[in-house]
Order: sequence, then C-alpha cells, then structure tokens
Amino acid sequence: MTKSFDELIAKLDGCPLKKVSVAVAQDAPVLEAVKVAKERNIADAILVGNEAQIREIAADIGMDLSGYEIINEEDITEAARIAVSLVHEGKADMYMKGSIDTKGFLKSVLDKEVGLRTGKPLSHVCVFDVEGIDHLLFLSDVAFIPYPTLEDKASIIHNTVEICHACGIPNPKVAPLAAVEVVNPKMPVTLEAAELTKMNEEGKITGCVVDGPLSLDLAICPEAAQHKAGATDRKIVGDADVLLFPDIHAGNLVYKAMVHTANMVNGNLLTGTKAPVILTSRSDSVDVKVNSLALGAVVADFMKKAN
Amino acid sequence: MTKSFDELIAKLDGCPLKKVSVAVAQDAPVLEAVKVAKERNIADAILVGNEAQIREIAADIGMDLSGYEIINEEDITEAARIAVSLVHEGKADMYMKGSIDTKGFLKSVLDKEVGLRTGKPLSHVCVFDVEGIDHLLFLSDVAFIPYPTLEDKASIIHNTVEICHACGIPNPKVAPLAAVEVVNPKMPVTLEAAELTKMNEEGKITGCVVDGPLSLDLAICPEAAQHKAGATDRKIVGDADVLLFPDIHAGNLVYKAMVHTANMVNGNLLTGTKAPVILTSRSDSVDVKVNSLALGAVVADFMKKAN
Repeated sequence: MTKSFDELIAKLDGCPLKKVSVAVAQDAPVLEAVKVAKERNIADAILVGNEAQIREIAADIGMDLSGYEIINEEDITEAARIAVSLVHEGKADMYMKGSIDTKGFLKSVLDKEVGLRTGKPLSHVCVFDVEGIDHLLFLSDVAFIPYPTLEDKASIIHNTVEICHACGIPNPKVAPLAAVEVVNPKMPVTLEAAELTKMNEEGKITGCVVDGPLSLDLAICPEAAQHKAGATDRKIVGDADVLLFPDIHAGNLVYKAMVHTANMVNGNLLTGTKAPVILTSRSDSVDVKVNSLALGAVVADFMKKAN
Repeated sequence: MTKSFDELIAKLDGCPLKKVSVAVAQDAPVLEAVKVAKERNIADAILVGNEAQIREIAADIGMDLSGYEIINEEDITEAARIAVSLVHEGKADMYMKGSIDTKGFLKSVLDKEVGLRTGKPLSHVCVFDVEGIDHLLFLSDVAFIPYPTLEDKASIIHNTVEICHACGIPNPKVAPLAAVEVVNPKMPVTLEAAELTKMNEEGKITGCVVDGPLSLDLAICPEAAQHKAGATDRKIVGDADVLLFPDIHAGNLVYKAMVHTANMVNGNLLTGTKAPVILTSRSDSVDVKVNSLALGAVVADFMKKAN
C-alpha cells in the first residue's frame, strides 16, 4: 500500500528512468515541474515546441537545458502531434500538456494515427495524500466526464483501479458516493451505486471491492463508519481507496474544496490511454505537476511490466 | 462582517439571553452542548423529555441541572410536541433536536397547530469558519432538499440570505456553484445558475448579490479568480459568502470533505421556520452543536428585532 507521494516517488528507485514528452513546452510552470522531476529522479523529458521560447523561459527559471532533447516546432498543433507520436512510438513513456489549450491537446491524445487511444473511454483520476488518512485517496471523475452513465462509471472504476494496481494497491476498495448510504429510489445515484456493487459481486467489475452507495464519512472515516448502526455488514468501513462521484459537479466541487479550503496537494492523470497523460491545469502548482509526473512514471513502469 | 464563530458568540454580548427548547432531551452529546452553551452565555435551555433519564445523564457528564426548567414527558412524540409549542408560544427562542429521529422531529416542526411553519420551503444552512478565509462561509443545501428546482433554489437563497443578514452581512455574495464558471447548455446546473443571477438583477431575489455559475476556486479563492481571464467582469471574485450547491450529493459530499478530510468545524440550522431550528446529527461534535446554538441565538435575536 502506498501511503504518500513521497512513497510513490520512492517506488521509482531502481526502475529505469522514465521520459515524458511535453507538447508545446514553452510554459514556465510546466518547465519548472520538468526541472524538479529530473532533479528528483522522477523523469527525464523531451521538450517539443518553440525552441527559442523554451530557452528563454529556461534561462528565466535557472534551468540547465544541456541534458534535454529539444525538438523545435513552432506550430502548436504540429508540436503536439510530434510530441504524442514520440509516446506512441515508445520513444517516451508519458505525455504532458504544455502551452496548448485542452481541446487541442486532447485532439492529439485521440489522434487515430499517432495518438494514445485504446478504444476504452478516457477518464480522469485525482490522487490526494490527506493528513490523517494512512493511504492515498483516488478521486474520479472530477474533471473529464460530465454526467457519467452506469456504463461510464464501470469504465471509470476500471481505469482508476488500474492506477491503484500500479501504485501497489492490489485490491482497492471503491466507494460509489452519494449523500446517503442507503438505496433510495428517489435518488437515481443510489440505484446506480447499488448496481455497480452488484456488478462487482457478479464478476463484471474486477480487481477491486465495490460497496455503494456510501456517504463520504462512511467511506473515509473509520470512526464514523463504526459509529453508525448497520455499518458492520459493509465491505467498506471508512477505508475506501477510490471515491467515485455521482457527476462532475459533485466531484469537481469536492476536489476544489480539498485544494482551496484545506490546501491539500494532489497529483492527477488522464487514464484509459495507452500511456499516462498529464493534463494539469494552469492553476495547478508546481508540486501538483511534479506529483502528476511521479504518478505517471509509476503507472508507465507498471504498464511496461504488464506488457 | 462576522469572521468567525468566536465573533458570532461575541455578538450575543448585551443581547437578552436566548432560550432553547430541547425535544427529548435525554441525549448525552446534546446535554453537553446545552451545558457549554449556558457556561459561555450563548443560551439557556428548557429540557423536555424523560426527567429521570435527563438527571442520570446530567450526573454522568457533571452537569448541574438546578438552573434549568425541566418538563417531564416520557412519550417521545408528545415531548417533541410540548417542546416545539414552547417556541411557538414565544416561551423559548429556538428549537433543538434531542434523542428523537429526524422524521419525528420534523413532524413536530411542521405541526400545523403548535409547530414553526411559515409557508415557505424549509432548507438547511451549514456555516463554516475556514482557516485562510476572512469571513464565514454559508453552504446550502447540504442536508435537506435532495434535488432543488429553480424555484427551490430561489427559496434556499432567500432563507440563507436571511441568516447572513442576522450574522451582520448586509449584502452577501451568493455563488451558485458548478464544475465550470461558464454557461454550458449541456449542463442544466449552469443554466439555472445563470437564471438565478438574472432573477437577482431583475429584483426577484433581493438582499444579496448573485453571480453564477461559478466554480469553487473562483467563488472562494481571490488569487484563482484574479488569475483567470474574464473574471474581471464578475461580481464575485473569490469573495463569496454563500455557496449554493447543484444538488444534495454535491453539497453533502463537499460538506463532509471539509469535516472529514480537513477537520473543519461548522454550525448549522434548519431555516425557513418561524424560529431557528437546530437539527444537528448524532455524528456532530459538541463544538458543532454549540456553534449551532450560537448561530441560532444570533438568528433568534435578529428575528425578534425585525418583528
């Protein structure tokens, strides 16, 4: 069980150093994260973009570019296409968004020739290291799928569970969340949560233990779970690894509450792709970007060993 | 502007001491909160319930009952009816749930003869004192209305704004939240948020400034709001007082994330009633119950002065 980002980074010791391909790399916070990731032996990088601008930013932030491969391509769309194809061809292990809008970046990820499609739906996972909780929490989906159907939710679980396995959690506990912990026919979310639990029991969702609907306190707080009557027959008793959200509003608002009211740091990835995709946003700190690179490197290593 | 629960409690200095009527008072955590509230000059109490059990619990927790009015009624439903009627008749200023289930308690609140109906929809407000934010945050609805319609949301705003006014915030900023800060026709929540904003501009929702849809970072984090392009034409720039949630799942999950991942303390009330109703749950700490009594006392004082 991996308990923190420091432990996650420690897992990379002894693995071959992974390489991230950065699309449109002329972006100060992204280059700073790439620099820190190299200093901490998390990942090396190939920088694709406007070389003059990359060199200018690197000079500003005191980054020595001598050890990096740089591919000069001033056109943004073309730079992304080159950067993603390096991952597609196995010359890099993961793919990262630089100074390009999300739409253009995703287009490169989904490119049929040089992209990272698997045919599976994509989803987003956000990993938090919460003080007082002795393991990492995997939140999904807080950023990508607006209103997931039951089928989408099964895919989100599948994608997220794979990330858990990569992080050394062989049989993660998955909590489909709601405001309540009992099925209420007037709340469709609780019916879907019960259905996902049944699909897990029937072997249609594997590699994890699903137990829902669950309220957040019963999912992550052992005292609360033990306190409530009836919680004894639950498979999750305050020890959930994965928090599955009803929709993007609930997920995104919880994620931002954790970041903006409690200053919690996370790392996040786009999943369901052939290789890890790092799609941090402009407002994410360097720490978040570095954590995301560490998560990506751990997942890339796991994928390599599985193939 | 009231910045914290300590300031809220300080507002009660010089006001006549308020009195809470407790339904089915034989409940240790509730009696403990009542005891602390009296010690801190927040409120006095009338205890309605099984007197023998009340005395037993009081002895256990070292509570001196000599200053309290106790009404012995062993039947739970009848005890609630007596307790609520004391508020209805003006003999007490607010109403609190003891050892009675929520359904039975609400039945007494809504009793046509002796209850606290106003004809307005009820809603729930949860008030947080967040470190790093220089004012109280009012969250609604995280516990009562499952899927609020547009009309319900206008009522929630109305109820919550009244609580803000009582707390010394004359023109609170209300943020109808979503995962995004722009209207997206595929996300009904964003359309409703825009409609509420329009209703406020047209004078249909008064006493506050409404600006939505807003993502949580733009609502409560001034740096994030200033960082994003276009945020300059917004009425809320990281300084929201009221957070309006899309539905109970989003609201309840955020509320529990703040409590269970960040150990934040809150106080909460049922609103839209003739007098403040304190409906804390079993899992709420004594601090939360005391804060709720303080909030109730401040609101009761405001209602008295307004009538």
